[in-house]
Amino acid sequence: MNTKRRGKLSLISLVVVVVFILTSGLVMKLKAAPPDNNQAAIRSLVDTWAAALRAKDLDAVMSVYSPDVVAFDIVPPLEYKGREAYRSDFKQMLELFAGPIQTEYRDLSITSGDNVGFSRYLQHLTATLKSGEKTDTWVRVTDCYQKINGKWLVVHEHVSAPTDLESGKSVLDLKP
Amino acid sequence: MNTKRRGKLSLISLVVVVVFILTSGLVMKLKAAPPDNNQAAIRSLVDTWAAALRAKDLDAVMSVYSPDVVAFDIVPPLEYKGREAYRSDFKQMLELFAGPIQTEYRDLSITSGDNVGFSRYLQHLTATLKSGEKTDTWVRVTDCYQKINGKWLVVHEHVSAPTDLESGKSVLDLKP
Repeated sequence: MNTKRRGKLSLISLVVVVVFILTSGLVMKLKAAPPDNNQAAIRSLVDTWAAALRAKDLDAVMSVYSPDVVAFDIVPPLEYKGREAYRSDFKQMLELFAGPIQTEYRDLSITSGDNVGFSRYLQHLTATLKSGEKTDTWVRVTDCYQKINGKWLVVHEHVSAPTDLESGKSVLDLKP
Repeated sequence: MNTKRRGKLSLISLVVVVVFILTSGLVMKLKAAPPDNNQAAIRSLVDTWAAALRAKDLDAVMSVYSPDVVAFDIVPPLEYKGREAYRSDFKQMLELFAGPIQTEYRDLSITSGDNVGFSRYLQHLTATLKSGEKTDTWVRVTDCYQKINGKWLVVHEHVSAPTDLESGKSVLDLKP
């Protein structure tokens, strides 16, 4: 092989290696999604929601939901379709209480991929109804999320208390 | 520019283009996950579960759950942790009924990424209790899935009926 040809081949090899390294970087970037950022973003939604509920700030409560959210809420009907329907439900709920609402959650678990995630937790709600009666209840909450235009939103929510099948009563005095 | 130099540059350009095309193919392969296959696999889990319930086949019912599933079931307690605990719950439920269980679902919605997914639907359950009483109820079901070692499994399930807050009763006669 003459020197010119060797030089040409070395140059080609160098270019191949450089292009490969650059493109591999891109491949790695696409493979390595930031799961921690997604988990943190979802965690932040849960915290935002709880703070909004404590502040009885309806707009802030609703800010975590997608416009087409479908909710299985603790109260009838079977399902609320869309943010406006769910907003009316929350408005009625907030109006039940006099004074502050306290809420805390336990056993929060968050699972997420790049664009789809879910969480579950037990929610403790203590407040005083306008009638003077005190509420002190644990409920179960499941939230399902999608990242839409770069922002995580709740697209489905399920809130409930268990049912005692013999009496037909909801069991509202359970503790975790 | 002399002919030799032009030739060398053309050859380098060609190699760059070829390497780029080959590596772009790899990038596209990594980006293009098969969402349809995932949706179909999750749909198949839902169908398997319903068929198993109709057949009152406890092993087949349990085959869709991850060993560390956490369930918020329609009956107390607040949560069932692990497949064995949830299996006991299902065993008791199946023993309540004489003869066949009929089940159908409505408004099934499945969302999935590559490894994380969820579904929601309304489930209609009609059966006859051993006491002779007929059950005809719609409940809400949310399932959360993870693909573990290439296989989709339910890692979290939430089943409930809404609560009438005034009477404290579960509302078991709603229809969608």
